[in-house]
Amino acid sequence: MEGKMRQHLLQMLIENGDTFVSGQQISDELNCSRTAIWKHITELRKEGYVIEAVQRKGYRIVSSPDRVTEHEISARLKSDVLGKNIVYEESVKSTQEIAQKLSYEQKPEGTLVVADEQTGGRGRLGRPWQSPKGTGIWMSLILRPEIPLQKTPQLTLLAAVSVTKAIYKVTGLHAEIKWPNDILINGKKTVGILTELQAESDRVHAVIIGIGLNVNVTVEDFNEDVRKIATSLKIESGNETKRADLIAAILEEIEVLYREYLNKGFGLIKLLWEGYAHSIGRRIKVRTASQQLEGVAKGITDEGILLLEDDNGKVHSIYSADIEIPGT
Amino acid sequence: MEGKMRQHLLQMLIENGDTFVSGQQISDELNCSRTAIWKHITELRKEGYVIEAVQRKGYRIVSSPDRVTEHEISARLKSDVLGKNIVYEESVKSTQEIAQKLSYEQKPEGTLVVADEQTGGRGRLGRPWQSPKGTGIWMSLILRPEIPLQKTPQLTLLAAVSVTKAIYKVTGLHAEIKWPNDILINGKKTVGILTELQAESDRVHAVIIGIGLNVNVTVEDFNEDVRKIATSLKIESGNETKRADLIAAILEEIEVLYREYLNKGFGLIKLLWEGYAHSIGRRIKVRTASQQLEGVAKGITDEGILLLEDDNGKVHSIYSADIEIPGT
Repeated sequence: MEGKMRQHLLQMLIENGDTFVSGQQISDELNCSRTAIWKHITELRKEGYVIEAVQRKGYRIVSSPDRVTEHEISARLKSDVLGKNIVYEESVKSTQEIAQKLSYEQKPEGTLVVADEQTGGRGRLGRPWQSPKGTGIWMSLILRPEIPLQKTPQLTLLAAVSVTKAIYKVTGLHAEIKWPNDILINGKKTVGILTELQAESDRVHAVIIGIGLNVNVTVEDFNEDVRKIATSLKIESGNETKRADLIAAILEEIEVLYREYLNKGFGLIKLLWEGYAHSIGRRIKVRTASQQLEGVAKGITDEGILLLEDDNGKVHSIYSADIEIPGT
Repeated sequence: MEGKMRQHLLQMLIENGDTFVSGQQISDELNCSRTAIWKHITELRKEGYVIEAVQRKGYRIVSSPDRVTEHEISARLKSDVLGKNIVYEESVKSTQEIAQKLSYEQKPEGTLVVADEQTGGRGRLGRPWQSPKGTGIWMSLILRPEIPLQKTPQLTLLAAVSVTKAIYKVTGLHAEIKWPNDILINGKKTVGILTELQAESDRVHAVIIGIGLNVNVTVEDFNEDVRKIATSLKIESGNETKRADLIAAILEEIEVLYREYLNKGFGLIKLLWEGYAHSIGRRIKVRTASQQLEGVAKGITDEGILLLEDDNGKVHSIYSADIEIPGT
């Protein structure tokens, strides 16, 4: 109850921005005493909020800490389903692992697992993903779409479009999508998306979308090898971003496109994806488990499969591969 | 060690069928004393084996109990990979649930979970599956094929073909496959197959094939409603079947077809499947989550999707549905 009330208070303050909120207003809305309000303000200050308190005017937030706790996210979030249930942990091995478990336990669609640090973060194909404390968004979202198995790769593309849009909205940075699941800024990897499934062969139980996003990571945080291929929003924009703002924006973008997707199908998502895609129409090298190919990326199919036309004009369907764009 | 030795002894006796195996032969092969052999024979008798012991001739099995323990199955099994690791439990909620967990723990391909009884067995689409004690095969097999997600429904079909072949081999009964995952004898459901996945959107970690097979279930074991639509090998053939014989035969059939599938693709499996299919070329009713259709089942695609031609000649791709064959 205490937590809920504090969250409600925080939400009021955040929504009012620079405007003071009077003690009376808070006390009416929260149905609590002035003393109780003061106690919550003290707690919020301990959490790193700088809150101005002026007699006869009330309270306002001067600055917030960059935290990704449940109430930091909830206070910013305007969504109907996604993020309505948030599980925050300071440090975890992997948010995907926790989300997988919660999904088995029938937690509802929209459940979000978010951590300040991952000690064993995983990327696509089991590759490790560095997730240093306090500098990135490491989160996993449970969706339960009623779609056939064959269509689930579409949700990776939907998530990539949503994250790209949210990055632009919050930071003004133009990101590009590299098939199937990376997001690049100025040619360097900024976001990785990992989509995992729990399914029967003809029914999807859950799609778990993991997002790793380098927000305030600095060049020094990356080791030498990673520096050449990875970047962060801070490195590219010069500014710090409040992670909770970006998480809220990502969830809102996903919610809009996901609703569109469930109601009207993949059409719009595909158009948006192709618009943001880094490689479509360009010459690429493709390395699958069994072969290497070179040619022009022609587009994606309605099932999210990449079409590659080789130099003999033969079109290959690429289900899973690493792609390389010569000259980047 | 004791268990391994007993299993080895059992295997020798089973392989020799009606022929006596001399104490000397056993003692040489197992590298143990006559007293040790006698101890193992006593233990096997306690488990329900009737073993004849004749001086100067040796031992032979007169009858075996119908058990599905690790050593009962292993003694009969001639496979390279499948069933090399067997987890037997007397009573479980669901073998799928255990196999899911073991798969997350990186247990190898071919791991088999088998139980004498399931208290919460599940069929396709979360439907309950009755799994009474001692009368059926309730098992789950972990496969780890390197195939794209889109192709995993093919493995349900592969499993259905394998089980149909194994039933014929062991009992002489002709079964038919009803798309996607039921096996019928004389029009009544005898086997259900449930295929579940652990996957990324472009990599399959595991395909877990659950098989529920009514072996020695009697008419009385089914409630009134189920009686009309379900049957067992015993009801149809009049004979009891040793479950371990059938499990070994199923694993061997799956292994042969699975190897063919990984090396040469879905072609042969598709032909076999269509050969055993109950509904192809016939008029069927299809009920999907969103609509009802009627028409002729034309066949399956290379991805295991059912093609239905309606009365206007339009062909529909059916990913997931219940089908009904009028007049059966």
